[in-house]
Amino acid sequence: MVNIALLGFGVVGGGTAEVLTENKSIIEKRLGCEYNIKYILDLREFPDSPFGSLVVHDFNTILNDPEVTVVAEMMGGSHPAYDFTKACLLAGKNVVTSNKEVVSTFGEELCRLARENGVRYLFEASVGGGIPIIRPLINDLSSNKINKISGILNGTTNYILTSMRDNGASFEDALKKAQQLGYAEANPSADVDGIDAARKIVILAALASGKLIDPKSIHVEGITKITLEETKLAQELGFTIKLIGYTEITDKGLLAFVSPRMIPSSNPLCRIDDVFNGVLVDANMVGEVMFYGPGAGKLPTASAVVADIIDIIANRDADVKPIVWEQATDVDKLCFDEYACRRVFITNDKAEDALPACERLVVSDGLRAYVTKDIVSEKEVRVISDKLGEKLVSVYRVL
Amino acid sequence: MVNIALLGFGVVGGGTAEVLTENKSIIEKRLGCEYNIKYILDLREFPDSPFGSLVVHDFNTILNDPEVTVVAEMMGGSHPAYDFTKACLLAGKNVVTSNKEVVSTFGEELCRLARENGVRYLFEASVGGGIPIIRPLINDLSSNKINKISGILNGTTNYILTSMRDNGASFEDALKKAQQLGYAEANPSADVDGIDAARKIVILAALASGKLIDPKSIHVEGITKITLEETKLAQELGFTIKLIGYTEITDKGLLAFVSPRMIPSSNPLCRIDDVFNGVLVDANMVGEVMFYGPGAGKLPTASAVVADIIDIIANRDADVKPIVWEQATDVDKLCFDEYACRRVFITNDKAEDALPACERLVVSDGLRAYVTKDIVSEKEVRVISDKLGEKLVSVYRVL
Repeated sequence: MVNIALLGFGVVGGGTAEVLTENKSIIEKRLGCEYNIKYILDLREFPDSPFGSLVVHDFNTILNDPEVTVVAEMMGGSHPAYDFTKACLLAGKNVVTSNKEVVSTFGEELCRLARENGVRYLFEASVGGGIPIIRPLINDLSSNKINKISGILNGTTNYILTSMRDNGASFEDALKKAQQLGYAEANPSADVDGIDAARKIVILAALASGKLIDPKSIHVEGITKITLEETKLAQELGFTIKLIGYTEITDKGLLAFVSPRMIPSSNPLCRIDDVFNGVLVDANMVGEVMFYGPGAGKLPTASAVVADIIDIIANRDADVKPIVWEQATDVDKLCFDEYACRRVFITNDKAEDALPACERLVVSDGLRAYVTKDIVSEKEVRVISDKLGEKLVSVYRVL
Repeated sequence: MVNIALLGFGVVGGGTAEVLTENKSIIEKRLGCEYNIKYILDLREFPDSPFGSLVVHDFNTILNDPEVTVVAEMMGGSHPAYDFTKACLLAGKNVVTSNKEVVSTFGEELCRLARENGVRYLFEASVGGGIPIIRPLINDLSSNKINKISGILNGTTNYILTSMRDNGASFEDALKKAQQLGYAEANPSADVDGIDAARKIVILAALASGKLIDPKSIHVEGITKITLEETKLAQELGFTIKLIGYTEITDKGLLAFVSPRMIPSSNPLCRIDDVFNGVLVDANMVGEVMFYGPGAGKLPTASAVVADIIDIIANRDADVKPIVWEQATDVDKLCFDEYACRRVFITNDKAEDALPACERLVVSDGLRAYVTKDIVSEKEVRVISDKLGEKLVSVYRVL
């Protein structure tokens, strides 16, 4: 009998209790072993929940119970989630989490503590919700060198961008609708400013490279400045605008950033719409593979949390290869200036003179959208932007 | 040092040698262990290959060498691939394979022999080429009950259907082009008659249900009867025709079949084009997730073969939960008659009288395509088809 404790009984915590209960018989059959939810830590009481009697308010009850060997942290936020995780690992308890903030910020230390204490720290649910992506990167693509990863990693912003494109809604109206539907928080900053996507892309970058970058140190642009006019211009150019978390392992170091990008219709990410997520992995032997599914939501996210719990129980006696990350240095972060891709320059006036050779031009509503023929680096974009001055409305990266 | 033998030095075998060599340093670093390709079994000599000196012609050289603990079978066909696999497992050697014919026909026995002999039999490359799908079904979706799987599992037929839809090519012309490009064999029957897809869907069905159905016993339709006119009608209805391997775990038993289907534009499979494969999994907690990528090809398939080799080496001292299948009985196969979905009836004359309520009708080139409002079972389709008589041109299942 394996005893499990859940930290946090919000959306994901509640879903995890539900998955562990609903699918108990098939999971126990697969495991050949029984399990039990022994405690649920939350500040609140849940008198009407079937799990209400399991709720405790003192973390030490869990920490000091040697019967608890697997802890699922689903509290969100850095503190006390990080502190509780660390205490559990030090006490020889395995931890699984859906908390991308903790993994992206403290993942190097927590993976190390897990190794040092002979336990595991797993976080499949921290990226892509229910989509299997972390474990496939570790196991299934283990025969490959990962070259780059491009992901639609945030369902809220993808819903808003899809709504702008398909319904002609303004950013503000689309956001309001997303809030009404429960897809966006009252304070939507973590989503619309790209912070959530930044946390996720540094986790994927670490899995691909072994190096964890501080998510606060990378270039992050959100979607708040995207206008309906730009959405339309993108469509006329045959592109669709998506918020993309991007990482690439370059000769100069590890690159990771988040920004809206113009996605060509030939790229499978251009068809990932609404609240869905998609992660496109480019690896040296397999080429491109994509993982698609619900990037958030109660049961999908819980499905990934429970997959990690099952992994731990199934391999409790095995000597599983641990995750080893090192903290990325400044050198790894220096390569953004050199990053080069095709660009779309949007101007409010004729601007051929100030631009590099362009392969296409679309004019609409007084705006002109130029697609460069060749790739242009970030450094060069800054020079061109200065030259364009007031004429420049915006610049997009093409994926 | 782990010694590996490759059986077969064709496309996949050559690719596997290449992946093991090209990515040797990163793989050995991940494994913390060295490996070596000791033998390559083939009937031919390869004097110009860097691997030429490893080639042997006598299988017993490999079988009787106790140093060889991992064997990758990439010969294709049932015999002697099955016989060699069996001999290796009985001799206590782990086997990985890309051979869907062997897995789909003899998988129950070979998984059992692996268990009984304390070794592993892995086959990630047998479905979806380089796309991670087998291991994610086993590990990542382990917290779920799988309800159904729909897959574009054959790149050749997907290329042909894409070419018919986008270029207006006839089936014959598209097949000829596919043969010129090396996507289709001189004898294309295994692909265009759906045999290859049938093998793959029974493997996926077995992973979802634990029961392996004989691929020869399931309903299989290929793509040879699809006309350009039908492709156009599908488009006018907002559908796209794809060859789909489908499995569903029903109350009555395990259902699996292969047929062309009309895919609505809202289904992510409708956008999987050309030689790419896509597998859409519907599971009770996560909902729908999709895996997309190159379903064939030298390096992608080899990438999956090598992922299995790595899995075996990494877990060589672990007590890994074995795959347990049983052979499906007739009872499990009985549910096809009850299978119900919406249908598209294509007729050469007005046929409202003989059809159930339809929600849409498109008329073109003397053909009429009716989409039923409700789902219709296979049994009912036969009754309706009899009533339609000469008027009936074809019937499609809607996914």
